[in-house]
Amino acid sequence: MINIAVLGYGTIGSGVVEVLSINGDSIEKRAGDKINVKYVLDKKEFPGDPIMEKLVHDYDIILNDPEVKIVVEVMGGIEPAFTFVKGALLAGKSVVTSNKELVAKHGAELLSIAKEKNLNFLFEASVGGGIPIIRPLNQSLTADEIEEITGILNGTTNYILSKMSEEGIDFETALKDAQNKGYAERNPEADVEGYDACRKIAILSSLAYGMQVDFEDIYTEGITKITDIDIKYAKSIGARIKLFASSVKQEEKVYAMVAPVMIKNNHPLYSVNDVFNGIFVKGNVIGDVMFYGSGAGKLPTASAVVADVVDVAKHLNKNIWTIWSSKKLNLADVNNIKHRFFVRISDKDNQLSTKIRELFGSVELLSLEGLQEEYGFITSELTEREMKEKLKQLPVINSIRVRF
Amino acid sequence: MINIAVLGYGTIGSGVVEVLSINGDSIEKRAGDKINVKYVLDKKEFPGDPIMEKLVHDYDIILNDPEVKIVVEVMGGIEPAFTFVKGALLAGKSVVTSNKELVAKHGAELLSIAKEKNLNFLFEASVGGGIPIIRPLNQSLTADEIEEITGILNGTTNYILSKMSEEGIDFETALKDAQNKGYAERNPEADVEGYDACRKIAILSSLAYGMQVDFEDIYTEGITKITDIDIKYAKSIGARIKLFASSVKQEEKVYAMVAPVMIKNNHPLYSVNDVFNGIFVKGNVIGDVMFYGSGAGKLPTASAVVADVVDVAKHLNKNIWTIWSSKKLNLADVNNIKHRFFVRISDKDNQLSTKIRELFGSVELLSLEGLQEEYGFITSELTEREMKEKLKQLPVINSIRVRF
Repeated sequence: MINIAVLGYGTIGSGVVEVLSINGDSIEKRAGDKINVKYVLDKKEFPGDPIMEKLVHDYDIILNDPEVKIVVEVMGGIEPAFTFVKGALLAGKSVVTSNKELVAKHGAELLSIAKEKNLNFLFEASVGGGIPIIRPLNQSLTADEIEEITGILNGTTNYILSKMSEEGIDFETALKDAQNKGYAERNPEADVEGYDACRKIAILSSLAYGMQVDFEDIYTEGITKITDIDIKYAKSIGARIKLFASSVKQEEKVYAMVAPVMIKNNHPLYSVNDVFNGIFVKGNVIGDVMFYGSGAGKLPTASAVVADVVDVAKHLNKNIWTIWSSKKLNLADVNNIKHRFFVRISDKDNQLSTKIRELFGSVELLSLEGLQEEYGFITSELTEREMKEKLKQLPVINSIRVRF
Repeated sequence: MINIAVLGYGTIGSGVVEVLSINGDSIEKRAGDKINVKYVLDKKEFPGDPIMEKLVHDYDIILNDPEVKIVVEVMGGIEPAFTFVKGALLAGKSVVTSNKELVAKHGAELLSIAKEKNLNFLFEASVGGGIPIIRPLNQSLTADEIEEITGILNGTTNYILSKMSEEGIDFETALKDAQNKGYAERNPEADVEGYDACRKIAILSSLAYGMQVDFEDIYTEGITKITDIDIKYAKSIGARIKLFASSVKQEEKVYAMVAPVMIKNNHPLYSVNDVFNGIFVKGNVIGDVMFYGSGAGKLPTASAVVADVVDVAKHLNKNIWTIWSSKKLNLADVNNIKHRFFVRISDKDNQLSTKIRELFGSVELLSLEGLQEEYGFITSELTEREMKEKLKQLPVINSIRVRF
């Protein structure tokens, strides 16, 4: 029997307990031993819930119990999660976490302690919920140099953009719908401003390039400026708008960015809709691969956490080597990335066409029925810097990067 | 330094040597040691190729060299591959293979020898080329009971069906195009009759359910009966025809089948076109996940082989436990599976509508411009057995299972 402690009995924590109970027999077969939840740590009480037998409020009970071999941290946030996780590793316990903030910030340090102590620190559930992506990156794509990782990594924003596109509604209405369905929090900032996706692409980039990518360095733009009219333009040319979190290696430089982009149906992530996540990876020998599934949700996320627990159980005295050095990877200046852009211009009397041709060459003007005082166009490839300079000279309503 | 031997210097074998050379530095970092190709076994000579230095014609040289820790079998076919691989394991060498025939037929036995000897037998490249699917099934989906695996597992047939759909050409023309491009072999039987996909779904099913699924037991239908007219009908209702290899668990029974199906754009595999492969997995807690990438090709397949070599190098004295017992899983009778069906009927003078209503209830008749003497319709859900009985009573041109 392998005893584990679960830190946090919220959505994911209770999901972990549930999955271990529903699929206990097959999990035991795969782990080679029974996984037993010995403690659950939470500040709250859960009257009537059988978990009460295992509930503790004092972390030291877990830390000082040598029978606990694996600590499952599903509290979220940096503190006290970091102190608890570091303490567990130093006390000789392996750790599984779903905590993207913790992993993005302290992943390198915690992995290095785990390695020193011949333990494991696994975090499959921190990116893409249930989708296997951390383990494939670490163990399946080891023959490749990763050239690009691009993901739809936030289910909330993907749901909002999908709803806006399907129903022609505006951002605020779609956000409210997402909140009503429990897909968006009351304070939706972390999702809609792209912060959540930013931490996740920081984790994936650190793993892909083996060095610390600080999430603070990643240019991040959310979806709050995307309007129903932008989406109408996109639809009029057979495109969709998605929030991409992306890192690309070009000539030994790594660029990383979170921003809305327009894509067409030749992109592998075009069909990733609603709350689903998708992660596209390009390797120099494997070519294009894509992983798709539920990026959040109680049971899918718990499935990834428990799979990590099984992996730790199979490697109790052997570190599963993950290359993520604490050496900082200096990201290249995003101003030098080249993109095509979709640009919307306010132009009441059609006076700007000469100016546009002067700035962007010959571009096809896109107009929408009923909108007389504006139009859009798609530029050829330009760096972010060049684009900013050019856009200063026009009455721009919005501009969105284009990937086709 | 870890010495390996490569058996077979064909497309994949030369790809393995190439990948180890292109990405040698990062592979060494991830494996924790340099991977050195000490021998390549092949019957042929390769004058002028630097591989000549390492070429041997006698397998015993490899078998008797204690320095060789890993044997990479990429010859294909059952013999002599099986004898070579079994010999290697018995001689204390781990084995990596891309050989689906070998794995489907002898996987359970070879895994059990590897386990006994504390070695590894890995075969990621045997299904889905470069796509990570074996390792995710073994190590990432361990918290789930697998309820369904459905894959587009054969790139050749997917290319043919995609071409037929895009260009409106018939099967023979599309096959010739695939042969000209090197996607189909001169004798295309193994691909177009579904035998290749059948072996691959046998492997995935054995892993998902932990027991031996014999490929001979899987109902297998290829794409040779799919015509350009079937595809026109599919397009007229927004559907595509794909060759699905599928196994589904219902009430403790496993059904497996390879057959063309019609799907619409709400299916995760709808966008898997051309030579790409996609594998959809449904777990009881993770929900739906999907893996997508190049299902064949020299470098993608070699990428998966080399990633397995890296994994073996990291587990030289530790068996990576794979649950696939030699106990036979008795597949359920496919005649009891329920499907909807698309049916094409020859009916010159529209005399059969009463008969059709009698057999299938009220169905909408689908007709194509220019085809006066036939029409199609889609049935409600019926078992395969019921369907066969009913179709006997009509002049059926073709019938295709429907998944929407």
